[in-house]
Amino acid sequence: MEKDVKGGEMEKEIIAINVDMTCDHKCEFCEKFFECEDPDKYKIFSRRRMGRAKETMAKIKYKVAVLAGKGGVGKSMVSANLAMALALRGRRVSILDHEFDGPCIPRMLGVSDKRLTLGEYGIRPVEGYLGVQVISMGFIAKEKEVTTLFTELRRGTTEEFLSHVDYGDRDYLIVDLPPGTSSDAINLMQYIPDLDGVIAVTIPPLVSQVVVKKAILLCLKAGVRVLGVVENMSGYVCPKCGSQEDILKTGGGELLARELKLPFLGRLPLDMRLSSSSDEGEPFVLKYPDNPASKAITELAQYLEEQVGWKD
Amino acid sequence: MEKDVKGGEMEKEIIAINVDMTCDHKCEFCEKFFECEDPDKYKIFSRRRMGRAKETMAKIKYKVAVLAGKGGVGKSMVSANLAMALALRGRRVSILDHEFDGPCIPRMLGVSDKRLTLGEYGIRPVEGYLGVQVISMGFIAKEKEVTTLFTELRRGTTEEFLSHVDYGDRDYLIVDLPPGTSSDAINLMQYIPDLDGVIAVTIPPLVSQVVVKKAILLCLKAGVRVLGVVENMSGYVCPKCGSQEDILKTGGGELLARELKLPFLGRLPLDMRLSSSSDEGEPFVLKYPDNPASKAITELAQYLEEQVGWKD
Repeated sequence: MEKDVKGGEMEKEIIAINVDMTCDHKCEFCEKFFECEDPDKYKIFSRRRMGRAKETMAKIKYKVAVLAGKGGVGKSMVSANLAMALALRGRRVSILDHEFDGPCIPRMLGVSDKRLTLGEYGIRPVEGYLGVQVISMGFIAKEKEVTTLFTELRRGTTEEFLSHVDYGDRDYLIVDLPPGTSSDAINLMQYIPDLDGVIAVTIPPLVSQVVVKKAILLCLKAGVRVLGVVENMSGYVCPKCGSQEDILKTGGGELLARELKLPFLGRLPLDMRLSSSSDEGEPFVLKYPDNPASKAITELAQYLEEQVGWKD
Repeated sequence: MEKDVKGGEMEKEIIAINVDMTCDHKCEFCEKFFECEDPDKYKIFSRRRMGRAKETMAKIKYKVAVLAGKGGVGKSMVSANLAMALALRGRRVSILDHEFDGPCIPRMLGVSDKRLTLGEYGIRPVEGYLGVQVISMGFIAKEKEVTTLFTELRRGTTEEFLSHVDYGDRDYLIVDLPPGTSSDAINLMQYIPDLDGVIAVTIPPLVSQVVVKKAILLCLKAGVRVLGVVENMSGYVCPKCGSQEDILKTGGGELLARELKLPFLGRLPLDMRLSSSSDEGEPFVLKYPDNPASKAITELAQYLEEQVGWKD
């Protein structure tokens, strides 16, 4: 759109960045994979690379990702505790920490000193509380090592973690996705095209809702079912006087769910004990089963089982 | 390391992911750029692409990045308010929102309805409070549009925002970096090799410190000066009874600074008004100048000016 401003000078509104987006038919590495309408895109996509992940994933009944687009909203805390809540229901659960640059899951589950090993049938996951299997870059790169991976290596790492890990027969794989709507989210949805659903996490502020919305829209574009929205850091009760304070306001998660016509899946309050339990490596659903956050996660696990149609 | 476990079966500890990391001398796209000791790496790096950014950046006296590695710790809030605090000191400030997937700066500065335009000398930044120039993907992708960029397009976008924007003569460029220690952080440090420094932001929990540490180590590896560590979400004072609660504990930022022998640059408390002011597009240093957070940011601006050696 050109408009005449400042006495005749022509200004052009910038609607795209000046970078080459012409099609080179390298569908595997294309940012527009999910919106592309070329029916050949799946043919071009390497069958060989996909095949092995398909085989490994076929032994896991339900695959669910936790995502936000935004960082620091509590995806890892929700993932770790959801895995525990499902294990408490007797399920065989694996958790894949898909945050390669800054993995938190090993520490949150008290297994940060463990390492992955290679067994007869591939990489052996670390085993945590209640037999929950954990796979994370945190077991490979040490805490003082920087992980730098560009697109191809990110894809390779996703492929490796979905293909060459000896999960065995499992009921659930919970994938904790990092922030962003680029490489990692796209790679995961390509490698697990039959993802059973995604749980979106937000915090109340509008600046968070706006970013989480983008991540949800990416899922919808990719044809992945969004199971609903969880609101984290929702309200705070002063332990001294009992007064309820909405430090980050509340209701933002519900607003977002309503706007996108998705189920609202509960609130986790701001609570010092929750963040401490993450630091100490004891998931709060185990350590504080009566905390409102634990009840919310337990209900989330139950809801998830209903939605995937779990049968004993 | 091989060890004999489970009655003779050999296990191998996994120390790297099974992806090709052999050198193809494409230094520009190499994850190991900053640790590589090949003296040719800068020669191979495209002079043409670097040249234009160098020219544009030469007109800006000081370039400072705000980073964390981790998401959701308040990088954007610190960046936006630091820009304002410098502008309050009479400086000509530009802010580059380097979060391409989920940009928050336009909303935080009350300019989210604005668009970038193309003028005679390149892309014209949006102007916000106190003449602060704002560049963000948020002015190009609308709030309901998903941005997906892999490594090459991320690099192209960084190049575009550092080369073809008509900033003009400025005192400061504040760059708000996204989470992660991969593409965006590397690209920025390559395109602005003379970055005047980086301010690291963390929240108190250990899981955050561990990730922020990785981002700081990346800076050190790249030879970029880290000016210090800011602690956000540090403590909370109940507005009803005045009792001080450390919802996320406090002191984590100071611990991290001490461990890495860096200056500790202050604390921002958890405060409903801070997150509201971001949502409402009014930076808190302008709206609540007497808030402890505003005082911390004002001191941060003063410290920054001392460190870069600002002279009137």
